[in-house]
Order: sequence, then structure tokens, then C-alpha cells
Amino acid sequence: MSEPNGPRPTLEAVAALAGVSRATVSRVVNGGRGVREPVQERVRQAVHELGYVPNSAARTLVTRRTGAVAVVIAEPETRVFTDPFFGRQLRGISRELAAADTQLLLMFVEHRADYDRIGRYLSAGHVDGALMFSLHRDDPLPAMADRAGLPTVYGGRPGWAGADRAPRPLYVDTDNRDGARQAVRHLLERGRRRIAVITGPLDQTSALDRLDGYREALGVPAADPRLIADGGFTASGGERAMARLLDSAPDLDGVFACSDLMANGALRTLRARGRRVPDDVAVVGYDDLEPAAWADPPLTTVRQDVEEMGRLMARLLLRLLEGRRSDGTPGTGPDGARRPHARQLAPVITEARLVVREST
Amino acid sequence: MSEPNGPRPTLEAVAALAGVSRATVSRVVNGGRGVREPVQERVRQAVHELGYVPNSAARTLVTRRTGAVAVVIAEPETRVFTDPFFGRQLRGISRELAAADTQLLLMFVEHRADYDRIGRYLSAGHVDGALMFSLHRDDPLPAMADRAGLPTVYGGRPGWAGADRAPRPLYVDTDNRDGARQAVRHLLERGRRRIAVITGPLDQTSALDRLDGYREALGVPAADPRLIADGGFTASGGERAMARLLDSAPDLDGVFACSDLMANGALRTLRARGRRVPDDVAVVGYDDLEPAAWADPPLTTVRQDVEEMGRLMARLLLRLLEGRRSDGTPGTGPDGARRPHARQLAPVITEARLVVREST
Repeated sequence: MSEPNGPRPTLEAVAALAGVSRATVSRVVNGGRGVREPVQERVRQAVHELGYVPNSAARTLVTRRTGAVAVVIAEPETRVFTDPFFGRQLRGISRELAAADTQLLLMFVEHRADYDRIGRYLSAGHVDGALMFSLHRDDPLPAMADRAGLPTVYGGRPGWAGADRAPRPLYVDTDNRDGARQAVRHLLERGRRRIAVITGPLDQTSALDRLDGYREALGVPAADPRLIADGGFTASGGERAMARLLDSAPDLDGVFACSDLMANGALRTLRARGRRVPDDVAVVGYDDLEPAAWADPPLTTVRQDVEEMGRLMARLLLRLLEGRRSDGTPGTGPDGARRPHARQLAPVITEARLVVREST
Repeated sequence: MSEPNGPRPTLEAVAALAGVSRATVSRVVNGGRGVREPVQERVRQAVHELGYVPNSAARTLVTRRTGAVAVVIAEPETRVFTDPFFGRQLRGISRELAAADTQLLLMFVEHRADYDRIGRYLSAGHVDGALMFSLHRDDPLPAMADRAGLPTVYGGRPGWAGADRAPRPLYVDTDNRDGARQAVRHLLERGRRRIAVITGPLDQTSALDRLDGYREALGVPAADPRLIADGGFTASGGERAMARLLDSAPDLDGVFACSDLMANGALRTLRARGRRVPDDVAVVGYDDLEPAAWADPPLTTVRQDVEEMGRLMARLLLRLLEGRRSDGTPGTGPDGARRPHARQLAPVITEARLVVREST
């Protein structure tokens, strides 16, 4: 509504209606400690009657809790809206946060300038914690979260400088190296001998780990560089990478594309160049999201449970938040039970599993 | 990071380093009014050196500005991530907000319980304003924004009870009625005489207005109910609606689907039932987003500039925010210029335009 229809009800109005002091209302609104139950009830009645909503700029200063969590995806929204990976991970996050009555605030990163603005918002007490994913090697977000003292859980193994120093960042990932090994071993079992790889951007650990798995499965110390091309985790990137690979290694008979979207792009190029799949070239993808099933032919791929990874990230963050008292330090709950300390929480690595379809 | 590496720099530390009082630091951080330039410079140096970020829970209490705007889409994130309409509108919003250094916070609505939580966050001083779209008739969001006194701009003509009372809500829409008339007139010009319509959910004004346009173009007071089916603005809904229409009116020779996604669903059903497009049945969509061009055959559709609509929404909200002084009332800027009053701002209706392709 462009203009409010009247002033917002104040703490004073609630105090007057309930016949108590401002301080009492404030105590009730912030948990009711030290206020007798009948008085609490009277205040809650007045709050309800007036439709009073505590100003949480003030409330945040007292409780240091906002009930909200930022989800920062270090990609522009155009990428986020065209890659089903993000929608699926968000679904898991969103369901888990909703179950804990915690508000999800989604933010994208398009330009360098966006980082400063996001850093300011995150540092400013508007959220209790953050989930961050799709970070690149030199990403300033972890340092920002660190400076702001903001409890944060990452999607994907941290690859930034200092990430291996204590306290180690909390994260959820899939076993990318093992997934890649399964993909390449499967191609070897299918009798393929010239196996190329289409990688994601190598400033992301998921892309690096999958490339390492490819190398390990081939069992050669240094893979033939003519068999490696970067497809940037997009369909059009996969299309172009496949074209470069066919030019540099026309005798290739297998391709491991490190995402289903890139595999789909590769299939388009193979079709355009008259190569039959899987007869001439066998193709394996990664993710097992919608594009794998839609592909023509349907894709053999490495399944990671993306929605579950989102759920696990949210769960880890919620446990981290439980473990902090209102003053930001770990401690005991109202029932005297010891809350989990950050140091007791650990990164979670989920399994990757090969799904065989018609493309191999 | 799970645990901060050290305490966050305080206002006191900045004051000590700059050799000024806390109050002076606070004044500089909040705009510098009444502080001499050399002192301001010294404080800014200290802020920079220590990496100090003002606690904006405190800062919000002073300036009442957070630098952030909520974008609330009254749909679950699964719908948002599968309908290109939302991604495109967000792109326009995101670019415009970024240009004004304003942080976008995206929120989805999946269950009734989400409304309460979103209402609490929006009322709590964490955002300066809101953009809301895809609202349904009984949506509680406008009343929440209203109660919270939150400057808000809507996507789509408001259809909730009381929306026509002053102060009228600000919104951006396309001329849905005219777009629908163009679609149906085009089918009539192509010689079609039994024209069906696949509508969106009729608790949304965009769906209602397009249905009205269909009726007006046919020039009959009450259209044949066998020619009307609700497709819920999704591809699978369009698929099912087309099947129902073919059952109830097997002689139909034209279909106006009120979104490209629904038109794509309708094309699938027509193909499955052996009807040739456009020879047997001509099909027109609405939106002119990616699914229109991908369709087989490519879709004749009504183009609305969705990205521009997003930009216009953001621009309208930014002007509304400019027009409010820090105490929340309209007034004059620092240069004495009169800022636009909310009453001087008006809804924006953009043009719809028919794009003819092979499906008609």
C-alpha cells in the first residue's frame, strides 16, 4: 500500500491497554522472563487486539535474533533461473527453514559491487545466519561472513585461501571425486579408450574435484590436454566445449560432462556433427536433474541428491544457531541441556551414485 | 564461517582511533551532518582501517533506512523456478535495484504459515519497501504491508477487496484485456469460428482481464462455457485443459491460451490427439518468453515486456522511497527540491502486442 492508513500501534499503546509499564511489555515481547503468567497473558491480549508488531530493529538489539536466514548464491539471477540445480537445492533449503519457522531471504550476485552491498546487509543484524553456495575461489563472501561473526554454512567444499585453518568452515557437499571416478570407470567398462572431459569453471572446487576423479580413474598421471575443455557449467558452454574437443581429438569415443546441462549441450554438438550417441561417442553427465531425463537419448549420469543437500545445509545452520546463546556464544538451553557447540558440528559429504541410461 | 575469528570492531574503537567522541562517529556514519570535513575524513579513515561496519539494527533506529527491498512472490519456489515469467521479471527488478545500490531480498510463499512469518519480517524494520507479485484474490500480503506502513508496489492490477479505495495501491501491469482482444481478433481474421480459451487461475486479475478480453472480442454476451477451461498458468495445466476442451467441444478450431507455458501444454495434447496446428486448430499464447520460440510450431503470442515491467516496478518503488523523509513522511530533499509525493505517483500500464508465428 503506498501510504499507511494510520500510525502503527506502539509499545506505549500496548502498555496503556494492558495497564503495565513499557518495560513489562518489552519483557513479554522478548520472551516474558520474570513476568508473572497472568500479566503476560494480559500483555499478549493487548498485543493481539492492537495488532502490535514489535519493531525488530529495537528487538534485534535485545534478542539478537531476527528469525531470518540469508541464502546467497554467488551467481547472477539469470544463471540461477536457467540451471535446475539451484531451484532444486533451494527447495530443500526452503522446506527445512519453513519447518523451523525461519524466513528465507534469497540474494544473487551479478557484479562486484553487489558484494559490498550484500556484506553491509549481512553485517547489519538483519539475519541470524547465512547459507552460501556456488562460491568461486576468490569470493569475498566468506571473509565478510567471518568479519560479521555471522554463522554460515557453505554449499560445496570451501576452496578459498585459509579455508583449511581452524575454525574450519561448515559445509555440505557430495563426493565429487568419487562420482567422477564412477562415471569414467563406467565409460572404460563400456570399452571406451579415448575419453574426454568437459569441466566446470576450475575456480570452483566441485569442478576441480570432478576433474581429479576423471584423472584418477584413467590412471594416467597427466591426462592428454586435448581431451579436456571447460564448459562453464552451462548448456551453451558444453556445446562449445564439445566442438573444441572434436576438433582437437577427432578420435574420441567417450565424454564425461561434469553437469547434465553441459552434457545436453555436448549432445547437440555431437548430433550436429553427425556422431551417433552412444554408438560413436558415449556420454555421461552429472547431477541427475530434469535435463538428464529430457535428453535425447536420456543421459547416463551421476546422481547427487541436490534437494537433500539443501535440506542438510539448512539443518546444519539451524543447529549452529541453536548452539549460540542470545549473546552469540555457545552455552546451555533454557532446560539446562548443553547446546551443540560449533566445534561439535562437522561438514557433511553425501554419496554420488551412477545412473545408467541410453547415452552409454 | 562457523565462528568469528575475533570480535567485530566497535564504534568505540573507531572513536578511539580517530580521536573523536562516539557521537561524532555516529553522526559521520549516518551522513556527517554538523561534522567538519577534516574530522569526517579522519573518521572515515578509521572506519576503513578497522573494517568497521555500523550495526544497522542501531543504525536503522536512527535513519530508518536499511538499503534493502523485499520482493515477495506469492508462489512456491518450485513454480517460480519453472515459469520463465518470474526469472525475467526479477531480472528487470534486480538490475534497477542494483543501479540504485539497493539490496534485493527474494521471498516465496508456499504455505499459509509462510504469510505470518513474512509479515513479521516485513513489519520489523528490516526492509525499506516491498515489491509483491502474483497475488491472489484473498492474499493477506497487501493488508500486512498496509498495517506495517511499508511502501509497496504491486505487479499486476490489485484485485483484493478494498483495493479501489483511496489511497489506491501503486502497481505495474500490462493491458491484459487489450492483449486478449488482439489474440482473439487475430484468430477471427484467420477464419476461426469456434475459439476456445485456456485461462489462468481466476482469482488473479491478469487471468480475469484476459478472459474478459476474449469475451469482448467474440462480441457475445456470454461465451459458450464448453469453450472455457482453467489451465492454472502451468504447462501441465494447459495440457489437461486442452484435453477437456477437445472432449466438450470437439469442433473447436482455435485456442487462445492465456500464457505460453499453457499454450505449450495445449500443443502437446493436440499432437497426441492427432490435430494439426495450425491447419486443424490455430493456437495463440501470451507472454512471448522462451517457451513461445521453442514451441513446435513456434507460437503466435501476445508480447508483454516482462523485464521492463520489473524495471518499472522497481523504479516506482524507488521514487516512492525517495519521496519519504527519514521520519516516513513526504517532504523535501537535502537540496530543498520537493520530492514526489506518493499521491503524485500513478500505476503504470504497459502495452501488449501481437507477435505472429507459425501456430496460426
